[in-house]
Amino acid sequence: MRMYDLIEKKRGGGVLTEQEIREMISGYVKGAIPDYQMAAMLMAVYFRGMTNEETTILTDAVAHSGSMVDLSGIEGIKVDKHSTGGVGDKTTLVAAPIAAACGAKVAKMSGRGLGHTGGTVDKLESIPGFRTSLSQEEFFAVVHQAGLSVIGQSGNLAPADKMLYALRDVTATVDSIPLIAASVMSKKLAAGSDCILLDVKTGSGAFMKTLEDSIALAQTMVAIGENAGRRTAALITNMDIPLGCNIGNALEVVEAVDTLQGKGPADLTEVGLSLAANMLYLAGKGTLELCRQMAEQVLHNGEALGRLVAMVEAQGGDSSVIRDTGKFAKAPYSMEVPAEAQGYVTAIDTEACGIASVMLGAGRETVESVIDFSAGIILHRKPGDAVKPHDSIATLYASDEGLFAAAAKRLTDAYTIGKEQIRPRPLVFARVEKDNVERFS
Amino acid sequence: MRMYDLIEKKRGGGVLTEQEIREMISGYVKGAIPDYQMAAMLMAVYFRGMTNEETTILTDAVAHSGSMVDLSGIEGIKVDKHSTGGVGDKTTLVAAPIAAACGAKVAKMSGRGLGHTGGTVDKLESIPGFRTSLSQEEFFAVVHQAGLSVIGQSGNLAPADKMLYALRDVTATVDSIPLIAASVMSKKLAAGSDCILLDVKTGSGAFMKTLEDSIALAQTMVAIGENAGRRTAALITNMDIPLGCNIGNALEVVEAVDTLQGKGPADLTEVGLSLAANMLYLAGKGTLELCRQMAEQVLHNGEALGRLVAMVEAQGGDSSVIRDTGKFAKAPYSMEVPAEAQGYVTAIDTEACGIASVMLGAGRETVESVIDFSAGIILHRKPGDAVKPHDSIATLYASDEGLFAAAAKRLTDAYTIGKEQIRPRPLVFARVEKDNVERFS
Repeated sequence: MRMYDLIEKKRGGGVLTEQEIREMISGYVKGAIPDYQMAAMLMAVYFRGMTNEETTILTDAVAHSGSMVDLSGIEGIKVDKHSTGGVGDKTTLVAAPIAAACGAKVAKMSGRGLGHTGGTVDKLESIPGFRTSLSQEEFFAVVHQAGLSVIGQSGNLAPADKMLYALRDVTATVDSIPLIAASVMSKKLAAGSDCILLDVKTGSGAFMKTLEDSIALAQTMVAIGENAGRRTAALITNMDIPLGCNIGNALEVVEAVDTLQGKGPADLTEVGLSLAANMLYLAGKGTLELCRQMAEQVLHNGEALGRLVAMVEAQGGDSSVIRDTGKFAKAPYSMEVPAEAQGYVTAIDTEACGIASVMLGAGRETVESVIDFSAGIILHRKPGDAVKPHDSIATLYASDEGLFAAAAKRLTDAYTIGKEQIRPRPLVFARVEKDNVERFS
Repeated sequence: MRMYDLIEKKRGGGVLTEQEIREMISGYVKGAIPDYQMAAMLMAVYFRGMTNEETTILTDAVAHSGSMVDLSGIEGIKVDKHSTGGVGDKTTLVAAPIAAACGAKVAKMSGRGLGHTGGTVDKLESIPGFRTSLSQEEFFAVVHQAGLSVIGQSGNLAPADKMLYALRDVTATVDSIPLIAASVMSKKLAAGSDCILLDVKTGSGAFMKTLEDSIALAQTMVAIGENAGRRTAALITNMDIPLGCNIGNALEVVEAVDTLQGKGPADLTEVGLSLAANMLYLAGKGTLELCRQMAEQVLHNGEALGRLVAMVEAQGGDSSVIRDTGKFAKAPYSMEVPAEAQGYVTAIDTEACGIASVMLGAGRETVESVIDFSAGIILHRKPGDAVKPHDSIATLYASDEGLFAAAAKRLTDAYTIGKEQIRPRPLVFARVEKDNVERFS
């Protein structure tokens, strides 16, 4: 196999064979194929695409470039959940405890935040003492005890994906559906769960801006998962507005706990329940309707919150902050952001909210940045809400007052205030299963 | 300027600005832009193309990456000629002496052969003593004395082109019209002539396989030349069959001399005269008809041959081999290749003829290969000719009898013999000038 021939084949719209794809990935990981040839290949894939079969093989080859986690030591059906990334997206902290409370097992590796989106591992680390790095024995023991465990990604999970992603990131080849799908799914397959629920965020705060692109990505990922023998489905959810009201690590844990206590914001509650119900459905716990009822029940009777507390304790965290979220360390400074006009909020630039939160210290501008867990934003007005001048649209939290001015400007600019009250769009746009797309609207 | 943004812009079909293109090329030459980013850009250009304005700027930036030859020290109008490469293409050795004999100045840097196509510098070096490496003073003096000089390319001509070509060669981005055009024309602009005649070979033995692609390439190159203030035109010529009968370095010089003596093959004579007439036309020597008449006159009265002899002597070569081509060193071994069927030659795989010649020692398989100047092929049958079994279709020449078997097989396979006599296609398909394409057929 000559890499040149593969580039030329893909450039001409050809379909790569299984052997070609596997040799390409192993050659690239070994350093036998240089970055410049892989860069040309990635750009050719950007223009020519890949068939579902090619993408499935690519995903499998990338997954097998590192260690494949074996979760067979954990009894029961293991369900993973992946979000393509959003602002204020604390759904794992809501849906995973619900699923666990209903008998699914959630043994999940999660990412850290980078850029304008947060990561579940960072959020959990805002809980004093919480350890996100566990040995396999500890990880299994936590799942056994609490029904769920969320840890950081191990070093050797799909190393080819790390290499490919770094190259795509500097060659403008990130936004290719087969390449995104292979990147996400290679890590999910390597992580070892039996079932995978994908939460494909769509809208201004998400990577995928349009519903149709999101559905296409979801279909590709579902096909990969099913071809690999994992039960896989996807929800396409709304990221035109931040989910819930809190953005920032400890602030988001607080909001998730509120939600598990039945007093969270309606949008987060609804998306959390939808995700949990779909996780349970994939795990074979019953019809989707029945799974939804089970999810609502464990949310309202406190069992789901109990699972979160159990996980926090099992991973060394101080569960008193979960039982009483008032005990979370507070940011030393806060600032109210006033509305600048009278009318109704018609839109919020969601990515800008994420950036404002990073500016306050809640996120990473580079991988070396240190996170301020107490920093962030609580939104008081969302699309559809009425405002008048001097109403606070949001409260900012930071450890340095000097950070407020720029972040407040960014947040003010992120709001569009109009004369007409708009009706918020649905929270879940569509549901994608193997060979089936169900649209809600 | 971030290279990432330029890749993304081109990927999306955008038009790069002059500043962007110039900074990209200077950054690449300096090593500030890595190969993998340039590879992604080249593949994006392959799919998205470039406007004539972008291609003109790219060409100028690549030309100015090294030294720009100043030919103003040579009196008169300097005319360059470039062939995109063919098999048996010794037209420079015919057309340049004709043009010089009619008063144009030809101060030409030429390439070496690689792969299945030959190079004029190699052919000239088959003349004992001939020097292709001259100082600028010597080069100018030869042109002054003989009207023409052909030397090898200096080391610092368009170094960015060498870098880009090496990268294209390994990333399957060679066959992109703007990139080919910029590569050819950057070297032509740097080489300093006032006028540039392009010979775009088309057909089975050429890089461009179709007439329409050849015309598109010619139009792009003509636009670049004219935009840079050089009078530029192109002929699209037939490379479905080898030009003339001789393939190999000394063999091709012999055939060129025969042609300048009025006894060459009809196809080579016609293409040589057409190229020379167009060179003279670009140099302002009169109408194309008049230039053609002048070219025929100096071919038939021996003045053109006289110019070739003068150049050979001025560059240290032994002109006795030109005056009597029987004095060229002969290959120690020869072999006749018999026809395998009765009928008419209907096609010759021209690239295969070039490869057979390389197998006999006449060309380079790698840049380090040493050429056997006496090796090569004389074709005795061409498309349209009748053959019967045991007729010799070609004579092979080599310094090692062991090379014959494989080359003879290759050559035999290159011939298609059918029942119907075909009419050969035209030698010159089209002529491209600024804003004008004239088709002949």
